Amino acid sequence: MAHPRFDVRTFSMSAPDDTSRIEEALDAGQLVAEDIVAVMGKTEGNGGVNDFTRGFTSMSLAWLLGERLSMTAEEVEDQVAFVMSGGTEGVMSPHCTVFSRADATDAPVDGEKRLSVAVAFTRDFLPEEIGRQAQIDETARAVNDAMKQAGIDDREDVHFVQIKCPLLTNDRIEQARNRGNDVITTETYKSMGYSRAASALGVAKALGEVPADEITDDIVAVDYDHFSGVASTSAGVELEKNVIILMGNSARTGGDLVISHAVMDDAIDAAAVRQALADVDIDVRDGISPQDAERIVNVFAKAEADPTGQVRGRRHTMLTDTDISSTRHARAAVGAVIASLVGDPMVYVSGGAEHQGPAGGGPVAVIAHSS
Amino acid sequence: MAHPRFDVRTFSMSAPDDTSRIEEALDAGQLVAEDIVAVMGKTEGNGGVNDFTRGFTSMSLAWLLGERLSMTAEEVEDQVAFVMSGGTEGVMSPHCTVFSRADATDAPVDGEKRLSVAVAFTRDFLPEEIGRQAQIDETARAVNDAMKQAGIDDREDVHFVQIKCPLLTNDRIEQARNRGNDVITTETYKSMGYSRAASALGVAKALGEVPADEITDDIVAVDYDHFSGVASTSAGVELEKNVIILMGNSARTGGDLVISHAVMDDAIDAAAVRQALADVDIDVRDGISPQDAERIVNVFAKAEADPTGQVRGRRHTMLTDTDISSTRHARAAVGAVIASLVGDPMVYVSGGAEHQGPAGGGPVAVIAHSS
Amino acid sequence: MAHPRFDVRTFSMSAPDDTSRIEEALDAGQLVAEDIVAVMGKTEGNGGVNDFTRGFTSMSLAWLLGERLSMTAEEVEDQVAFVMSGGTEGVMSPHCTVFSRADATDAPVDGEKRLSVAVAFTRDFLPEEIGRQAQIDETARAVNDAMKQAGIDDREDVHFVQIKCPLLTNDRIEQARNRGNDVITTETYKSMGYSRAASALGVAKALGEVPADEITDDIVAVDYDHFSGVASTSAGVELEKNVIILMGNSARTGGDLVISHAVMDDAIDAAAVRQALADVDIDVRDGISPQDAERIVNVFAKAEADPTGQVRGRRHTMLTDTDISSTRHARAAVGAVIASLVGDPMVYVSGGAEHQGPAGGGPVAVIAHSS
Amino acid sequence: MAHPRFDVRTFSMSAPDDTSRIEEALDAGQLVAEDIVAVMGKTEGNGGVNDFTRGFTSMSLAWLLGERLSMTAEEVEDQVAFVMSGGTEGVMSPHCTVFSRADATDAPVDGEKRLSVAVAFTRDFLPEEIGRQAQIDETARAVNDAMKQAGIDDREDVHFVQIKCPLLTNDRIEQARNRGNDVITTETYKSMGYSRAASALGVAKALGEVPADEITDDIVAVDYDHFSGVASTSAGVELEKNVIILMGNSARTGGDLVISHAVMDDAIDAAAVRQALADVDIDVRDGISPQDAERIVNVFAKAEADPTGQVRGRRHTMLTDTDISSTRHARAAVGAVIASLVGDPMVYVSGGAEHQGPAGGGPVAVIAHSS
Repeated sequence: MAHPRFDVRTFSMSAPDDTSRIEEALDAGQLVAEDIVAVMGKTEGNGGVNDFTRGFTSMSLAWLLGERLSMTAEEVEDQVAFVMSGGTEGVMSPHCTVFSRADATDAPVDGEKRLSVAVAFTRDFLPEEIGRQAQIDETARAVNDAMKQAGIDDREDVHFVQIKCPLLTNDRIEQARNRGNDVITTETYKSMGYSRAASALGVAKALGEVPADEITDDIVAVDYDHFSGVASTSAGVELEKNVIILMGNSARTGGDLVISHAVMDDAIDAAAVRQALADVDIDVRDGISPQDAERIVNVFAKAEADPTGQVRGRRHTMLTDTDISSTRHARAAVGAVIASLVGDPMVYVSGGAEHQGPAGGGPVAVIAHSS
Repeated sequence: MAHPRFDVRTFSMSAPDDTSRIEEALDAGQLVAEDIVAVMGKTEGNGGVNDFTRGFTSMSLAWLLGERLSMTAEEVEDQVAFVMSGGTEGVMSPHCTVFSRADATDAPVDGEKRLSVAVAFTRDFLPEEIGRQAQIDETARAVNDAMKQAGIDDREDVHFVQIKCPLLTNDRIEQARNRGNDVITTETYKSMGYSRAASALGVAKALGEVPADEITDDIVAVDYDHFSGVASTSAGVELEKNVIILMGNSARTGGDLVISHAVMDDAIDAAAVRQALADVDIDVRDGISPQDAERIVNVFAKAEADPTGQVRGRRHTMLTDTDISSTRHARAAVGAVIASLVGDPMVYVSGGAEHQGPAGGGPVAVIAHSS
Repeated sequence: MAHPRFDVRTFSMSAPDDTSRIEEALDAGQLVAEDIVAVMGKTEGNGGVNDFTRGFTSMSLAWLLGERLSMTAEEVEDQVAFVMSGGTEGVMSPHCTVFSRADATDAPVDGEKRLSVAVAFTRDFLPEEIGRQAQIDETARAVNDAMKQAGIDDREDVHFVQIKCPLLTNDRIEQARNRGNDVITTETYKSMGYSRAASALGVAKALGEVPADEITDDIVAVDYDHFSGVASTSAGVELEKNVIILMGNSARTGGDLVISHAVMDDAIDAAAVRQALADVDIDVRDGISPQDAERIVNVFAKAEADPTGQVRGRRHTMLTDTDISSTRHARAAVGAVIASLVGDPMVYVSGGAEHQGPAGGGPVAVIAHSS
Repeated sequence: MAHPRFDVRTFSMSAPDDTSRIEEALDAGQLVAEDIVAVMGKTEGNGGVNDFTRGFTSMSLAWLLGERLSMTAEEVEDQVAFVMSGGTEGVMSPHCTVFSRADATDAPVDGEKRLSVAVAFTRDFLPEEIGRQAQIDETARAVNDAMKQAGIDDREDVHFVQIKCPLLTNDRIEQARNRGNDVITTETYKSMGYSRAASALGVAKALGEVPADEITDDIVAVDYDHFSGVASTSAGVELEKNVIILMGNSARTGGDLVISHAVMDDAIDAAAVRQALADVDIDVRDGISPQDAERIVNVFAKAEADPTGQVRGRRHTMLTDTDISSTRHARAAVGAVIASLVGDPMVYVSGGAEHQGPAGGGPVAVIAHSS
């Protein structure tokens, strides 16, 4: 019986529309357009409402792949999950990580689990469902689907669940009202936080990270003691359902990649990053060795300014800065901490971490070639 | 014969004019106003041309100490060296570090060097001397003076030389012109860089870090392969001479503080920070212990966006960001890296590092209680 | 019987702590320290939460006047109302406007009303009263007091009511909770808007701009169709009550100053500014004459990004800009419009205009020497 | 003999990739893809180095037109001149202005000149020619070509010359060096200014605005008393030659559009805008009439922070703001001034005005339907 292998490659970009490295890899046969299932990118915008670099990269990729696959850009977007995260503050370097799925040529080795990736979807949400129980529960269902699809039996083997979720627009709010229903917030920007929050709680529910009966409407974006240690969620205006990219290790997958994760308690929790690296047999206590550096494909993390206004009991100024949004501060800090440990600034740190790790912290995951 | 001891204490601030923690320490007798020789602060402005938080803090401190010493604010500023650095991006926490000098009660222990601090001054510079040989040579002379004054015989025992230097204003440029002389630049903002650069090279010359005959006018802000590993310079509009705060270890000083330093090769050079910590017997490879954390008084470092546009061969976007100045990005990154190692975000990272460490890097120094 | 005259003078500033022009005027006897009742300043910070230029200017003025009046800075602040507004975006020029009250030497001319200014206070508010009926009603009461004090009988003669109001801090929120009471919002930044809004509605109530029975708790920061055409309110952390500076024309006042106002419907409503100017006999349809330019002391206005996201049916991008806060955009725009009409960029435009003029617009007032 | 008519239409955009209004116009036959010669757009980025909204809009338009014309995007860009200007600060509204050329059905009316538009090109420049005499002279030559092509005999009939010019990249600087030649600056960002400056002087030379013998290398970006009153230049990384879009009135053109211009002396020079409007028979002294508002197609202007640091003798803070770049301040101010006069925020104001109008000012042009 055929079983899959997943390949993950990271490509640098010189601008949001620079897909040249991916084109080269396609041309060289290192990457097969048909095999691509997802792309996660860090683009160099501000990561805020008016960050158009995300859309620019998605469009550029959709056109490139459309050409190679003889599809329209729309058809490509139906087939490949694009998740773009804006903001490469500090040392972070713009790039795309491309996930491919192919048939493995060798059978999985007994007892050795390998990276498995699955893409799943919820149904479309009504505007009045965003940030509420329906979004939590549907997300949980889709996460369970994705686990099955990925061939992962044990929840402990799930290490990163990237979700793209919808937000409320003025049009959608109006639609809800016309049905006589209210929405969780009438502020578009705030709806992004609610949608991210409910989606993260959906992951926590599916994976049993929080008892199911404690995950109710009223803790969404309120009680941050309840969180998922593997969810990474971001809201986008272009969709009405949640798209889930689940990553974990499976005994039924080939290839040589593995994934691990840990939970950063705060923005400077280097110990958590060291732990995630240790879990893939990489010891960075005296700096990373060139051999281990080669093994790392990418590190994925979520960052946010601690809502208490303090990190380790010290006042920070990220939330009171009217010139730079707190997510930009937080990405710069966490990106540098991780880069200093793996010796590479081409890492993926995304902002806005409601219920994704504890308040002020967030999940960090490592994909690496097995040792 | 009396010999001195130096005490260094760090005080958190809730706003640029919040001197309440220092007042409390004065009231409690933990700090003696008469003994204070210098204050180095991180304030929460943007660190740029229009950062008025530096002046606000200096003024607040001058008034506070003036009250306690029955002096005018101006007299205080003649007696105490104030160096304020704007910008607490990312996790950094606003604070002031106060340096005091008192007579030691015990004699220095044989073979045990302890922190010594000296403040020295150059003569006033003519505008046409800024960024040129005269500023280099006068700075070198003053650094030598400071070494003597600090009781430091060996250049290797100098670990951090903080300099505040003048810049060109339109008035000063006009004065030079009226004398028939040209200035190094007619752009006020750029003159800050030239003044910092020449001052750093003055340190390098005094300490023999660069052969004296290679330190000439024409390498100022041009050839960044020549640098000091201990200089930290910043330009301020309020003065016409260089103020030097030299820190090192002396065999003729009492107290229990020691200082060490290393040179960060780039913004994520955690190894250099680990080295500086190891030099004061602090091992952070598995995280810092509570005991060692207690021993650290503060960490001082300089940061800048690598002028090549790359960190470790990866493109960064700090220099092409029209929304956030590159110094803000760089401080956020380096501040987080250091904070992650010492487990404390209340550290001092200052931007703009011409000839202070290699391009893209900078010195990092640690003051700690001896073990 | 003695009657007062009010003098108003505007002084440029080269930095937030530059009080040299005011010192010169004091030294020259053009300004008498004892007569000063209020100072309204535009300072060059970002106008947001971390704008410390306001405090820096207030402190500098308090010290200067304290020296002249042999008072402490605190005593000065009890006697003189300081209102600092941050943000001189675009062409606006940093400055202070000083209001003085002296005995008039001549009797008022029959039928000629002249500028009158009064400062009044509410009682201290409990945190749970901020943004609610108590704040509205107390403000209305104080405005009525100020009218009487200013010798203004007709509400139509009130042209500008500048209010400084408190905000909620974490400490104050905690106090309310300890009493078992809730507050209008637990977000410090948002409480500024509620406090401004309730204060503006208090003005509207006192002046009968909105029927008293329509001004209730539940329209605060909700129903922007109810507004004052003369209120200009700003929140500051340093006080617990509202300070009211009321300006209007009185038949019982001497001097040669007059004030007028109009309501801008949106950020580009030049017609309203022309109207306010016409009301003090200044015609700017073909540009302002040098004589008329001399007559103007200052123009005061409030600005905000239209909450509908549109100006004159065209989409604006002020509210979706994650890099520049919308108040900065709005001040730049309105400041330039007014400056282009009066031919002078040294005008006072302040941001955040809840219930101060219609949504997206705001009051504009002109103080001028009578023709 | 056939003669042309030029149509100009302005389309609002809801995002940089929103071409839906143009698509509708194409579908409705109001716009003919084959006739389009140029598009000038205001996009909602920061207008700086990392403003990718310009490229995103150009790419979206190229793809749209490519689909309609059965061309590749590259072929479209060879045929249609795209000029995108980033930055819609303050009230400005994102939009595109589309210029079309068709055969006129009626002969031009004697004595009535109508809008004529021509697109011309220089040869490719070597990197060492940028900002120097060769770029000036070649631009002058191309402007003369464009005048002939547009059927304009009298230089006075030229009212706006939009130029897109190259800049220096690290690669191009390297190429020059390999030939043993130096370049005008090794700073990429500064090269944009030099290229804009030389291009503007090329226009001034062609139109005789400055005596030809005074236009030499050494005044480029130095002597701003020499300038063009109609040039509007912007640098872009994507080209190696200058693209010129010349607009004026011709006796040999049909249609009903006319163009006028004036030179703003500073950012608040409303008189100049009123003059340009008066030249197309629009009187805005009492506000614009609905009829006249309908007649205006668009207003084009250049803006910059006055390099003296003052506007009308008052200090501005645009050049000392480390948080917001001065071009953003300037566009917000000038955009609002113009919008307040024409009653419409959908105007085109672009930043960076070296030798385009006097220092601190810039050209302003109006395209309107004839009365």
